Amino acid sequence: MPPLNAQWRLAARPTGLPKASDWEYVEEPVPEPGEGLFVVELEYLSLDPAMRGWMNEGRSYVPPVGIGEVMRAGGIGRVVESRHPDFAVGDSVFGQFGVQRYAVSDGRGVMRVDISLAPAPVHLGALGMTGLTAYFGLLEVGRPERGQTVVVSGAAGAVGSVAGQIARIKGCRTVGIAGGPEKCAWLVEELGFDAAIDYKAGELRAQLRRHTPDRVDVYFDNVGGETLDEVLRRLARGARVVICGAISQYNAEQPPRGPANYMQLLVERASMTGFLVFDYAARYPEAVAELAGWLRTGQLRSREDVVRGGLERFPEVFLMLFRGENTGKLILQLDGAQ
Amino acid sequence: MPPLNAQWRLAARPTGLPKASDWEYVEEPVPEPGEGLFVVELEYLSLDPAMRGWMNEGRSYVPPVGIGEVMRAGGIGRVVESRHPDFAVGDSVFGQFGVQRYAVSDGRGVMRVDISLAPAPVHLGALGMTGLTAYFGLLEVGRPERGQTVVVSGAAGAVGSVAGQIARIKGCRTVGIAGGPEKCAWLVEELGFDAAIDYKAGELRAQLRRHTPDRVDVYFDNVGGETLDEVLRRLARGARVVICGAISQYNAEQPPRGPANYMQLLVERASMTGFLVFDYAARYPEAVAELAGWLRTGQLRSREDVVRGGLERFPEVFLMLFRGENTGKLILQLDGAQ
Repeated sequence: MPPLNAQWRLAARPTGLPKASDWEYVEEPVPEPGEGLFVVELEYLSLDPAMRGWMNEGRSYVPPVGIGEVMRAGGIGRVVESRHPDFAVGDSVFGQFGVQRYAVSDGRGVMRVDISLAPAPVHLGALGMTGLTAYFGLLEVGRPERGQTVVVSGAAGAVGSVAGQIARIKGCRTVGIAGGPEKCAWLVEELGFDAAIDYKAGELRAQLRRHTPDRVDVYFDNVGGETLDEVLRRLARGARVVICGAISQYNAEQPPRGPANYMQLLVERASMTGFLVFDYAARYPEAVAELAGWLRTGQLRSREDVVRGGLERFPEVFLMLFRGENTGKLILQLDGAQ
Repeated sequence: MPPLNAQWRLAARPTGLPKASDWEYVEEPVPEPGEGLFVVELEYLSLDPAMRGWMNEGRSYVPPVGIGEVMRAGGIGRVVESRHPDFAVGDSVFGQFGVQRYAVSDGRGVMRVDISLAPAPVHLGALGMTGLTAYFGLLEVGRPERGQTVVVSGAAGAVGSVAGQIARIKGCRTVGIAGGPEKCAWLVEELGFDAAIDYKAGELRAQLRRHTPDRVDVYFDNVGGETLDEVLRRLARGARVVICGAISQYNAEQPPRGPANYMQLLVERASMTGFLVFDYAARYPEAVAELAGWLRTGQLRSREDVVRGGLERFPEVFLMLFRGENTGKLILQLDGAQ
């Protein structure tokens, strides 16, 4: 008897904030893997703001998830059956396995994960795509120099919390923007940010001015919207704005708001640059090695916000991202997790 | 008897499009130059969209023109009196002399102009700050490569017409965006652009798609607004957006419109970078030499839109810029011009 798979398939293209009915929950037997394939039982699903964009129609950096297709998501699980020469039963693996209990894979884009180094959730957090995104975005695009001021928005989120810590490790004045006093306290007291700005407390402009006396050399933006506009007003000469995300705009029902102050790029001879972590794939090993080293010495902390309850809860847990309810990396733990 | 000077002094900070009453016309005797100073009789004033920004309050790349101060402008004239060791009576000079008939200068920022090489207006156009802006913005910030597609907005304007020609000289597919069939015909037939897009004809998106089959590698933006937003949708992987100006927004009475499609920078791993020509001052001589070479061989054409009528006409002639009434470099010729 093959095990029973369960999947969330995309059922509709959402307008605004997704609803549970934008996906369909489907159960069906796990197919037998053919030659060169293997079956993964998923344990942890990575929940990321970018997934919202994959639900939209139109050209982007990856094709949209098709209606009727399994919702795309990264995840970690164990190989439970294999007819593939490189993956053995019992291996822990990471891949874009989708929002489901079991995935059949040919191994493309799949990486073996060393859970003796750190628990599986950390491999979705600081040692996973999250950490790599922060690492390459900050260091390669932002190019911060010792003593410069780095501002990170979405600073209590998965990528932002790592980006800010790397800035601190590199000797920068590090200022995080996050929502609420708990997150802000965590940034300063636990992660060693020099200052945190609670955007929910209002007076973003005045708070920014207070905490960036030498203006902003690098802005690592995860949120877009008003926050981006305000930081543009504080740029230092030659500043680099790193466009990593724009979570404030992902569910906008109107056309997204553009950064009205973008002409500050001219005034300050500054740049605004987008990037995708996939372009740095050849350098993942060196980055993981450095991130793992910082984790080992305690300079870098990975925080995962692991929600239990199984696959059924996917829609509601996913929406926590857009309500700012997670601190650190949001992960859905599935029933199979060990 | 000292000659009589005339000046346009800033009288009010304009809201929206400036009115003549935002300046005051003042006549007074030219002061005697003290030791180390000289007097220039101005012949040609450079009229530039950036001057609109200098009329606004607030931090920018230069301080605003103060109320009661002579309106700032670049110009070319002849030295008519000198107590300065480096400038002799009869020299043709360029400097930020202001909107007036005579200027007293200590020589800071003043450059001697070789009118045997080209007539004075060309030294405000392709051989002046205009040409230098196009040169460094396109080549240093845009970094076009042979065979790539370069789109220039404000392409029939002073800077745009030179930037597009340099792109063509560098072997790029060059597409200009301009207003009206005459300007578009001039770009293609006289300046050798591969295609021109008449934004006034509508269907900007469809026109862009038609003329940039391989998308856009470099966008040299002089206009901002809807045009910038549409070109962002056509960016190629790794594209460079050069922010040179945003003339469509300079007289906006609402906060300027930001580029709503800026997240295309992420999708295409592209950058948007502002620059100011002044930062390249040390390299002006090499750039002027190269521009002069292209002019000599006929690869580059400088077009100046010289309006006669004297200093009195400054306000109305300046506003031609914002009505798209000039083709090439807009220059006000003063009565003293030879």
